[in-house]
Amino acid sequence: MQASGGASVALDTVDAWWRAANYLSVGQIYLMRNPLLDRPLEADDIKPRLLGHWGTSPGLNLVYAHLNRAIVERGTPTLYVCGPGHGGPAMVANTWLDGTYSELFPAITEDREGMERLFRQFSFPGGIPSHAAPETPGSINEGGELGYSLMHAFGAALDNPGLVVACVVGDGEAETGPLATSWRGHSFLNPVTDGAVLPILHLNGYKIANPTLLARIPEAELVDFFRGNGYEPLLVTGGFDGEDPMSVHARLADAIDVAYERIASIRADAAAGAFDESAPRWPAIVLRTPKGWTGPRVVDGVQVEGTFRAHQVPLAGVRENPEHLAMLEAWLRSYRPEELFDRDGRPNADLDALRPRGDLRMSATPIANAGIVRELDLPPLDAFSVEVDPGARGASGEGMTILGDWLAELMRRNPDVRVFGPDEVLSNRLGAVFDVTDRAWAEALHPLDEHLARSGRVIEALSEHLMQGMLEGYLLTGRHGLITSYEAFIHIVDSMFNQHAKWLEAAIRVPWRGDLASLNYLLSSHVWRQDHNGFSHQDPGFLNVVVNKQADVVRVYLPPDANTLLEVMRHVFDTQNRVNVIVAGKQPQPQWLTPMEAAAHVDAGIGVWAAAGNEPGYDAADPAASVPDVVMACAGDVPTMETVAAAQLLRERLPDLRVRVVNVVDLMRLQDPSHHPHGLNDLAFDAIFTTEAPVIFAFHGYPSLIHQLAYRRSSHANLHVRGFIEQGTTTTPFDMLHLNDLDRYRLALDVIRRVPGLAGRTGVAEIADEWHAARASARAYAYEHGADPDWITGWEYEPG
Amino acid sequence: MQASGGASVALDTVDAWWRAANYLSVGQIYLMRNPLLDRPLEADDIKPRLLGHWGTSPGLNLVYAHLNRAIVERGTPTLYVCGPGHGGPAMVANTWLDGTYSELFPAITEDREGMERLFRQFSFPGGIPSHAAPETPGSINEGGELGYSLMHAFGAALDNPGLVVACVVGDGEAETGPLATSWRGHSFLNPVTDGAVLPILHLNGYKIANPTLLARIPEAELVDFFRGNGYEPLLVTGGFDGEDPMSVHARLADAIDVAYERIASIRADAAAGAFDESAPRWPAIVLRTPKGWTGPRVVDGVQVEGTFRAHQVPLAGVRENPEHLAMLEAWLRSYRPEELFDRDGRPNADLDALRPRGDLRMSATPIANAGIVRELDLPPLDAFSVEVDPGARGASGEGMTILGDWLAELMRRNPDVRVFGPDEVLSNRLGAVFDVTDRAWAEALHPLDEHLARSGRVIEALSEHLMQGMLEGYLLTGRHGLITSYEAFIHIVDSMFNQHAKWLEAAIRVPWRGDLASLNYLLSSHVWRQDHNGFSHQDPGFLNVVVNKQADVVRVYLPPDANTLLEVMRHVFDTQNRVNVIVAGKQPQPQWLTPMEAAAHVDAGIGVWAAAGNEPGYDAADPAASVPDVVMACAGDVPTMETVAAAQLLRERLPDLRVRVVNVVDLMRLQDPSHHPHGLNDLAFDAIFTTEAPVIFAFHGYPSLIHQLAYRRSSHANLHVRGFIEQGTTTTPFDMLHLNDLDRYRLALDVIRRVPGLAGRTGVAEIADEWHAARASARAYAYEHGADPDWITGWEYEPG
Repeated sequence: MQASGGASVALDTVDAWWRAANYLSVGQIYLMRNPLLDRPLEADDIKPRLLGHWGTSPGLNLVYAHLNRAIVERGTPTLYVCGPGHGGPAMVANTWLDGTYSELFPAITEDREGMERLFRQFSFPGGIPSHAAPETPGSINEGGELGYSLMHAFGAALDNPGLVVACVVGDGEAETGPLATSWRGHSFLNPVTDGAVLPILHLNGYKIANPTLLARIPEAELVDFFRGNGYEPLLVTGGFDGEDPMSVHARLADAIDVAYERIASIRADAAAGAFDESAPRWPAIVLRTPKGWTGPRVVDGVQVEGTFRAHQVPLAGVRENPEHLAMLEAWLRSYRPEELFDRDGRPNADLDALRPRGDLRMSATPIANAGIVRELDLPPLDAFSVEVDPGARGASGEGMTILGDWLAELMRRNPDVRVFGPDEVLSNRLGAVFDVTDRAWAEALHPLDEHLARSGRVIEALSEHLMQGMLEGYLLTGRHGLITSYEAFIHIVDSMFNQHAKWLEAAIRVPWRGDLASLNYLLSSHVWRQDHNGFSHQDPGFLNVVVNKQADVVRVYLPPDANTLLEVMRHVFDTQNRVNVIVAGKQPQPQWLTPMEAAAHVDAGIGVWAAAGNEPGYDAADPAASVPDVVMACAGDVPTMETVAAAQLLRERLPDLRVRVVNVVDLMRLQDPSHHPHGLNDLAFDAIFTTEAPVIFAFHGYPSLIHQLAYRRSSHANLHVRGFIEQGTTTTPFDMLHLNDLDRYRLALDVIRRVPGLAGRTGVAEIADEWHAARASARAYAYEHGADPDWITGWEYEPG
Repeated sequence: MQASGGASVALDTVDAWWRAANYLSVGQIYLMRNPLLDRPLEADDIKPRLLGHWGTSPGLNLVYAHLNRAIVERGTPTLYVCGPGHGGPAMVANTWLDGTYSELFPAITEDREGMERLFRQFSFPGGIPSHAAPETPGSINEGGELGYSLMHAFGAALDNPGLVVACVVGDGEAETGPLATSWRGHSFLNPVTDGAVLPILHLNGYKIANPTLLARIPEAELVDFFRGNGYEPLLVTGGFDGEDPMSVHARLADAIDVAYERIASIRADAAAGAFDESAPRWPAIVLRTPKGWTGPRVVDGVQVEGTFRAHQVPLAGVRENPEHLAMLEAWLRSYRPEELFDRDGRPNADLDALRPRGDLRMSATPIANAGIVRELDLPPLDAFSVEVDPGARGASGEGMTILGDWLAELMRRNPDVRVFGPDEVLSNRLGAVFDVTDRAWAEALHPLDEHLARSGRVIEALSEHLMQGMLEGYLLTGRHGLITSYEAFIHIVDSMFNQHAKWLEAAIRVPWRGDLASLNYLLSSHVWRQDHNGFSHQDPGFLNVVVNKQADVVRVYLPPDANTLLEVMRHVFDTQNRVNVIVAGKQPQPQWLTPMEAAAHVDAGIGVWAAAGNEPGYDAADPAASVPDVVMACAGDVPTMETVAAAQLLRERLPDLRVRVVNVVDLMRLQDPSHHPHGLNDLAFDAIFTTEAPVIFAFHGYPSLIHQLAYRRSSHANLHVRGFIEQGTTTTPFDMLHLNDLDRYRLALDVIRRVPGLAGRTGVAEIADEWHAARASARAYAYEHGADPDWITGWEYEPG
């Protein structure tokens, strides 16, 4: 990146930029014609429906102008993260003044016509939303659902040395939990190898209809709050009671200068080893200005500026009410547009002095817009795969430990891969990564600490929100990563997943945005193995949330053993613009597939495991030639273990019953291909599941999800799904299965119930007896029994 | 409640209680026999699998003992909210010492046998989980998913004047977002009319495998953090480097005395008007003790006490390793059990001095255990219902405004109903409640503030977490309430909903817990009307999360107009132990049903709206006699409007087509009765939907949810569902419908496609033409067009 030089910028120019951005913000909310006020405003110039939010805009514009000054004077690359909701008009206005908007959206030219289009498209059908969004140049943070700006900022700063991420936090947003816990994000930052985050809390005092908390506490308390979160706050208050903006400019410019200088000295001190004992105290700015500053002060006798009434559209009746129309015109003219734009609508040349060059423009920085910085060097799996003897499948192994080794190698080869988790990397048995890197920690260290250091590429804090948000920020700025968490508690970030998926859905339609690395979830402490945690830890419903998003974006994988897990993980790190969810237990599990088989199985996403069943006449070239009596399908590691065991029971007791075993590793294969690109076509689906045989489907999650995915299939009426039916408690692995009708005996008995003519057969009673015996012993306390993989070894096996 | 008197308690007794609780905690983790160590420990005395968490227990026990002292000496009713995860052994130990456990679980007697059962049941199949749970007397907070203790505490304190809610916050939990934003809960508390919350941050320094943030920041920063959140912290540090516990007892007793006295003086000062200008500064305690204090210091040469290694089971190989067995015995004997329990295992009489009487025991308080304090006085609906002329249905009305009037009357009659929302009560048009009460606000007030006061029963902060958590705390302590929020953003609390539903699912099986008022969600800013907000605000997926919980607990209502909304709301306030979700838009909508019709419709939950269709031969007494050509079903206000309009189009264009219109207000009616108690039996379902006619179902949410609910129905293959298919942007109401194939024209064309023989008929082309015209004009910018209810007035109508 090229520095802009060191020319000092006059505050008059800063004020002119600010006025221009304010003018353009108001124009977006109100105007569809007459953008330069060449003639007096008329009702027809006004949009038929006034939507948008003025309140936060002047503050955002003020910060933008002042950051531009800092960049121009210092050449410090800076990213602007806009936290306040509905800051769209401001962010768009500044990117247009930057010139970036016209470069990226050529129809929105830098002239009168472009300005009119810019105004018209805002909050207009087919136009742009009223908050910063994927369509907004330079943005990595949607101003829709609030609370994630500061964690995005910290994620963006990681491994971007020299960068300043200026993050405007709205005082409404500051009330959210995710934002409240983000203040401490710097506890994971290294001043030398990472960038810096400069939080700018904008106190305009009000939300939609209420004051904000942080604006109403005593100022001393506010200062304590920042110090208590590890910052030294710089307070700038101004614009109240008609104060001249020029004095506010002077104070804010000073504060920003101090902040940039402190950041520079923290960097220098850190390089000199100053923070071996404790963390640096970072600067933060608290900017207190009136809500809707420079807008109409009093409307219809009621105070608007500086109150919650300035939140949206301060003058609501402009088309109908001539007085309001006149007030709007006076308001717009108060910015002196004739000084700001030339006769053709181009920004005046005076503003050039405040416009950073090229990529230094905050709206043009590749950090926010360009996507993946470098392709990953993915380690081959050979060195990590598990040996599986096709003659003796089902031996125990730990998928997570094996994956940990591969992840360590991935991180060794790639400096831009990070792992985030709420203190679960070790308990999820991924500890091998600590051979390569440590956990980052800027606070005090203790001699007994392990894998904790001033720099490291694992970040752990007990906040799923913070971990997800920092990973998002890291991905949105072109890097790669993984989050690992409890399956039940990943619901904590349902809404963050939703919003990130929506960002991806919208961003892939924005031509100038680069591809992003996928967001990968590894859920390894799952519903079936919460032996002592009990009911509160038992919930597989995240998958239900995930499958509702657009099919382009979401994938769900349920690898049944270590080699399939490795294949899946390598695959997901090789994808872009997606959310991949992988569910795989951390407990020892039977190993089924050789590395080659696993590669083929993951590639297919679904497959017949012929030798786990009983299909002597099965011919892979013509699957339809051999119709089994029953299909036993499974998805998920534990259901796979139970299904294979159930099929074995049936082979022993009812050797002439033709049982097909099907394993699903890519859940979206079940969906109709018109609904999901991974959906099997009907022919292939019917070849696997048949159109006649009953299908006993053992599923990791809620059974209804399988019905939801497969309801269009012609064999849907044959599907009998077992899964988690919200029965849980503190109990053994076997008992959990039993409570939810998913144990091997119950699956075998399901087959007997669904296949005509089996009920009275020899062998059936024995299965029922074993079931009763297992229940009794499980209830007694045979903890280990149900999970013992030896129990199901010794059977012939070949995958299909 | 009765005060216990004022006897002062010796710290020796406090120490004895603490040792007893520690002994019982260790016993629960390890022992299944020999509970009193009558003979040397043997391997067979040890549980076969060691599960549980020692690390947090001694701290929780310490606080419990000291709070007992405060209660006994002062008679102040106190509730103990236990935040740290896996504090189960401690909470259970203390409730057994209280005597409450044996009163509520008679099998767990206060003697040797009871103690053995107490030990054995812990983290054992069929036993109790390793954290505080619904089965734990005195608990209102599950220690499973962390972060909600302090918000539960604030909710419990509301309208409980004189109560102290002592809330132990773990330093792991303190890293979560929800907890981080809860510190400011006191900003909504009135010292006179509400109780007080005493946060006790327990810094034991470590999570599972990491240090905690708040334990590693400089102490001055920690003090600033508390002051910045409005507290004056009292710091108690002790137990390090072998410090004698008696000195820690002295310091902690002092701190608790100071805290109770400050709370008392804040109450007195508040009653005298001291806090008119600013909020009181509440006390908080910061207790820093070693993790696993009094446990094994060094195991196998590695430091355990005071490190993350004390988190779970400090001695892991007790059954196999004689040295570990000996260490366990020494550890247990270090508490001098012979001084604490008599030969029969009964707690020694010395401990009586520390046991509050009756309801003053924190484990026995009716506030936590007893359920609803008083039945609601539900206002009759007559005065609020909308007049609907059966001859001219479809006139516009605002359901939310009307509901607001009823809610206001509900709050007028019932002092224990509160409304919580993230600053949306006014924008959701429920402003009438401000005729009855204000928003509570303890911080500075401003002359221009509206409906903001030192006391009030509306609480608004921009944190769905805090609003949900305070409402949960309010409900869990026997009161009533409502939360209102954006439909898309209620996903923020998916996981809190989950955990609350799980609490209810478990609590209804605990015989001594009283009924709780249902948790009611009102989602009125929904997916179909986000005209300027765009894609980030468009998500109806909360319903998918909700329906996965146990059927006993969850209900979903989609009232199509104001009178059905009133009926639904009255009903949900009359239910217990449930989560009710109501989705109803805040925009003006057509009104369909008279009050009497609405009552009948909500009671049935689903019904044929005969006159909206075209069933001249329809006979309510024998529905099967009249089989329509097509069924047009709908659920949700906007889909109902479109379906009725589509049916009207068809009646005009194809007057001989027999169209049945079905409206679903209680979504669970669709589910199989074996899956949900509200599920229609198959006969009734088939009578409504027929087994032959195609069903065009217009649904508010994701279409797959209808398939998920109805997949067992014999007519399932006839179901063609339209709903939100994740297509959204900033656009008009009509265009949103069009993008998702849910507009009236598309629904009518769906009918034409599905009913054989209609394709070439006269009238069909006109519908297609209207569709194209509407699309064109919508795209142009006719904002108001699609939502104009006049558009569909003027048709004959009678509900079935």
